[in-house]
Amino acid sequence: MKTRFASRMNVMKPSSIRELLKMTERADVISFAGGLPAPELFPVDDIRIAAERVLADCGAKAFQYGVTDGIASLREQIAFEMKSRGVSCSKDDVLITTGSQQGLDLIGKVFLDAQDVILTENPTYLAAIQAFQCFQANFNPVPTDANGIIPEAVDELAAAGNIAFLYVIPNFQNPTGRTLNLERRKRLAEIAARRNLVIIEDDPYGRLRYRGNHLPPIKAFDEANRVVYLSTFSKTVAPGFRTGWAVAPKEIRDKLIIAKQAADLHTSSFDQLVLERYLRDFDNKHHVERVRAAYGERYTVMEEALERCMPKGFSWTRPEGGMFLWVSGPHTLDTYSIFERAIENKVAFVPGADFFPGGGGHNNMRLNFSNAAPAAIKEGIARLAEICAEALTGEALPAGA
Amino acid sequence: MKTRFASRMNVMKPSSIRELLKMTERADVISFAGGLPAPELFPVDDIRIAAERVLADCGAKAFQYGVTDGIASLREQIAFEMKSRGVSCSKDDVLITTGSQQGLDLIGKVFLDAQDVILTENPTYLAAIQAFQCFQANFNPVPTDANGIIPEAVDELAAAGNIAFLYVIPNFQNPTGRTLNLERRKRLAEIAARRNLVIIEDDPYGRLRYRGNHLPPIKAFDEANRVVYLSTFSKTVAPGFRTGWAVAPKEIRDKLIIAKQAADLHTSSFDQLVLERYLRDFDNKHHVERVRAAYGERYTVMEEALERCMPKGFSWTRPEGGMFLWVSGPHTLDTYSIFERAIENKVAFVPGADFFPGGGGHNNMRLNFSNAAPAAIKEGIARLAEICAEALTGEALPAGA
Repeated sequence: MKTRFASRMNVMKPSSIRELLKMTERADVISFAGGLPAPELFPVDDIRIAAERVLADCGAKAFQYGVTDGIASLREQIAFEMKSRGVSCSKDDVLITTGSQQGLDLIGKVFLDAQDVILTENPTYLAAIQAFQCFQANFNPVPTDANGIIPEAVDELAAAGNIAFLYVIPNFQNPTGRTLNLERRKRLAEIAARRNLVIIEDDPYGRLRYRGNHLPPIKAFDEANRVVYLSTFSKTVAPGFRTGWAVAPKEIRDKLIIAKQAADLHTSSFDQLVLERYLRDFDNKHHVERVRAAYGERYTVMEEALERCMPKGFSWTRPEGGMFLWVSGPHTLDTYSIFERAIENKVAFVPGADFFPGGGGHNNMRLNFSNAAPAAIKEGIARLAEICAEALTGEALPAGA
Repeated sequence: MKTRFASRMNVMKPSSIRELLKMTERADVISFAGGLPAPELFPVDDIRIAAERVLADCGAKAFQYGVTDGIASLREQIAFEMKSRGVSCSKDDVLITTGSQQGLDLIGKVFLDAQDVILTENPTYLAAIQAFQCFQANFNPVPTDANGIIPEAVDELAAAGNIAFLYVIPNFQNPTGRTLNLERRKRLAEIAARRNLVIIEDDPYGRLRYRGNHLPPIKAFDEANRVVYLSTFSKTVAPGFRTGWAVAPKEIRDKLIIAKQAADLHTSSFDQLVLERYLRDFDNKHHVERVRAAYGERYTVMEEALERCMPKGFSWTRPEGGMFLWVSGPHTLDTYSIFERAIENKVAFVPGADFFPGGGGHNNMRLNFSNAAPAAIKEGIARLAEICAEALTGEALPAGA
């Protein structure tokens, strides 16, 4: 029997990253695919103690239904954290989400009718593309350079009106690792105010900075209440809790809460309480320092290995933080076509094309450096470089050879 | 500045139940509103031990990203549980959801285009109405009697074609407490096959039966692979984990997984593992027996109190299980208008009108009997009966009196 599905299912495809992850789960593959934080750095002992304390102190309350916007004491911790990032807000501005992926889904629910236009960096985060495709949005990728999205281009597109929102990842962007500079952050806030443009600022990686100075979020300059800020505990504590948050103007937060009621009622009470207790009783700042030191080292190892091994014709970004760098080959290269060969050689990456909502970008690949030990990174880049060199040679051969 | 929201936000309103819950959180209100299980019955000690074992055995893995369809060992436990309910399936037919509320959201994503028609019982579950409203569906409520939805009416409506799906809660329905009889379950499966009609069978309460015999789900008769079965651990373990599941035909399950990737990537790894360990190491069947005994007693206390106290002109359902019964007053009664008076008298219920997707039903109220102790139930029903009597008398007074 033929099942009739919603028309959105024609554009929604399984995430190639998550499909690839299945292939790369084999223990012998050195994986630069995926975006996994390093589990050996998770603060498991502290989480264990926090969980024990929640069980001892809260008992059954830890397992009862809760309010949709999230546990007040956790929202307070988040408001405190936001202050250190440069945003002044209270717990009543915060909404807990089931990972920041749910933040994207709720944004889609609240803002997107079919065929609405959204502005994004080019390239942009694959799972955000998927989340917004679910609402049958049209993507208008905005020119982007080494300093991030170009505000003048945003201004021009916003002038035409009818933009549902701008989606931007200012810190160590996924997939490129690039950072939006301070001046452009201020400019975007100013454009948002002047053009009545909603900005969705997605900041999962902001605390993972290895070099340079912390930059305040766009939200820090949001006097006009046009910016929704999304973040998560996935990179600073652990992703398995699926707990993130949104900081949003009241009018928008109220709508997000209605959408969340329909989506999952609320985020796990137990997970919220364990996280809250962990943040209250332990030194998360110190923990993040450890993560930064480790990832920063891994980044350096990868960068040096690329420098040493990659053939001529390849370049890559030099992110100041985060989990990814972005390798670009000659324009004739199709990184999809070398993926299979890479897996045979037991190294994995994510082909870049999927990150371009408007198509193109086949000559790029995204490399994750947070989830492999330094020795594995060296070995993996050596293997990858060999395949890239092969691909170039192959291209040089006459057709049919 | 005026924010432009998606058009769905015009129909999506805050859940009146969740708004009411806020009012009824005051400790001195006896609340028959909400649908809270009794926290004093949660198997907290067993969960504590299960959590300790997960932390000891899994370590960091308990907090890493996971696969979208859920942890295989938990899906195996669920397949085993499904067998006891009368459905033969394997772990590969199961998808873990973030509560069964997310099951409803994913069903909406996979099946509903704007203006699509869905068939429901009349009345039906409020949070399902909200979930499907998010996709701008049109509701076609189907005539329903003491034995549940009327298959002949479903058949007739399905004959017209163009129905996205039928949504039905066969056991101890929310809000009425009614149960679909066996013959009608078979009939619905037959209609689904003949009319190519997808059925969403929502079964959160099926294991909470106090009288009579277990009835196999519609899914048990689903030879044509037209039925998606949804359930949850919220009533048999605890709701705070936000962990439920869907059992779906492969073609549909594949689409649900794509939708879930975009919605929240996956359900909390920690919660899934703790639940899996709890189910593996402890006697959940025995736990559910305890819950059934306690809720069954509370139901009896409420039913007897209604019998004793309610004024003439009121009737109520006599559910064989679940958490709710449904009180109907004279047709002139508006239960919204007496709600405030009830809160003043420190008793709460949910006005019935919101459960009718096509409007009407103002003379009804939903009473939850699982979350108050027997003495409180007696006292609360006495208070409620007094207010109902008052309302009748008030109606008899001349206007302006």
